[in-house]
Amino acid sequence: MKKDRILLIGGGGHCKSVIDVIEQENKFEIAGIIDVAEKIGTKVLGYKVIASDDALEQLFKDYKYALVTVGQIRSNTLRIKLFDKLKSIGFTLPTIQSPLAYVSSHASVAEGSVIMHHALINADAKVGKNCIINTKALVEHDAQVEDHCHISTGAIINGGVVVKEGTFVGSQSTTKEYREINGFIKAGSIAK
Amino acid sequence: MKKDRILLIGGGGHCKSVIDVIEQENKFEIAGIIDVAEKIGTKVLGYKVIASDDALEQLFKDYKYALVTVGQIRSNTLRIKLFDKLKSIGFTLPTIQSPLAYVSSHASVAEGSVIMHHALINADAKVGKNCIINTKALVEHDAQVEDHCHISTGAIINGGVVVKEGTFVGSQSTTKEYREINGFIKAGSIAK
Amino acid sequence: MKKDRILLIGGGGHCKSVIDVIEQENKFEIAGIIDVAEKIGTKVLGYKVIASDDALEQLFKDYKYALVTVGQIRSNTLRIKLFDKLKSIGFTLPTIQSPLAYVSSHASVAEGSVIMHHALINADAKVGKNCIINTKALVEHDAQVEDHCHISTGAIINGGVVVKEGTFVGSQSTTKEYREINGFIKAGSIAK
Repeated sequence: MKKDRILLIGGGGHCKSVIDVIEQENKFEIAGIIDVAEKIGTKVLGYKVIASDDALEQLFKDYKYALVTVGQIRSNTLRIKLFDKLKSIGFTLPTIQSPLAYVSSHASVAEGSVIMHHALINADAKVGKNCIINTKALVEHDAQVEDHCHISTGAIINGGVVVKEGTFVGSQSTTKEYREINGFIKAGSIAK
Repeated sequence: MKKDRILLIGGGGHCKSVIDVIEQENKFEIAGIIDVAEKIGTKVLGYKVIASDDALEQLFKDYKYALVTVGQIRSNTLRIKLFDKLKSIGFTLPTIQSPLAYVSSHASVAEGSVIMHHALINADAKVGKNCIINTKALVEHDAQVEDHCHISTGAIINGGVVVKEGTFVGSQSTTKEYREINGFIKAGSIAK
Repeated sequence: MKKDRILLIGGGGHCKSVIDVIEQENKFEIAGIIDVAEKIGTKVLGYKVIASDDALEQLFKDYKYALVTVGQIRSNTLRIKLFDKLKSIGFTLPTIQSPLAYVSSHASVAEGSVIMHHALINADAKVGKNCIINTKALVEHDAQVEDHCHISTGAIINGGVVVKEGTFVGSQSTTKEYREINGFIKAGSIAK
């Protein structure tokens, strides 16, 4: 069966982790990476940077799937801008899910979000658009992660927690149950 | 093969996580949920609340398996009371183990305990009765978790640690090795 | 197919976890354990302590594979000494990897290192010689763990971090991205 081809927008460290997930998932063929003009011709894990984002409208003639693979620590501005741009051009932004992750059949994950290796989305949880649920992160039963959030490596969103749009939740942090979380949660901290 | 039918006692958030595990394990058919009288007729992930716990003796005529699915954060009093009641009526309380969890063949888990998704019980560890080893929790080699404990999401019980009866170990907390732990361990803390 | 036989040097708690991994990996047959003279004849998970390390040169006539299974918390001196001794005698020190762990095909792990259950080594990460990547630990994309390190249970080495030779990284600790880490990182702390 021929796999659909996908463009990855952003060729940094997070992109490598996403490539590993896409290879393991084995649903898409990575057609190339989009990054700044100076990087065109370089490679990320063997995949070429083929254009900068000025070329996205042109590329849409050949490719229908794309994913934002820029990371998000200090700010999500760039991830939102790229997501909106891809959508307005007409790209389909799939949900990418590692076969080493688990998403409950009672949970939902929206377009453009990636569920990385060993992550887990439990029963009745909801993950919005353009989110990163990073390696080993956990979103527990009844939790809600709104659009454009990054749940970092090993972070835990406990039962019933609502993570408001655009929130960054730091690596290895955790939360009390049934709270609302907003903004920037430091690595290793406890959001009460 | 016909699956044995099981009753779940307590229809809150923890019950949803347990339902997800039971569905994935595929050993038991969930016959219904027992909760307070006002909830009879409502549903949890599609399973009906069929009675309150006054009806348990009556229900024992039709159902032989039951499990306490009430959560445990502030207190374990209700979980112990229900466990004792089910046992005195004559119910069998199985061990429920997620196929996404790992329990070493050198470890043991007693009746009525649940080993949730991505949890791990390592070599020579022992888990007592009526425990919750929650999502992504780890009980390392030689550790001992006594009866009626809740090891919360992502918590780590390191090698040789003894967790005394009825202890709550908070989400994402950890322990030094070969300690004795008792009472209430806060989320994200280090039990020394 | 006949499995190669391996000697385990050190019969404490960490050895039990390693035995569990070797059994699950099913590549090696454990020929026996080497420990102090007083323990000869005792058993660890059913495997006999057959000699003390004075006998290693003699044992090399019959066994070609060995692994250091002494733990490392306060100091790595003993693990380095044993590693060097095994190498100078001529033993082959394999990489042991749990089938429940994941090592990216874009990552590398050097001789004598063990990747325990539920651990994960992500794309473009490198793990040196004689390391313990303990249960549920995570080494993220582009990270480098130099020789003789112990990444404890549930610890997270985030993207691009360099863990210098001989470092101990405590249970459930985490790191900022692209840092250099050295020495002794306490359990549950954040290495900045």
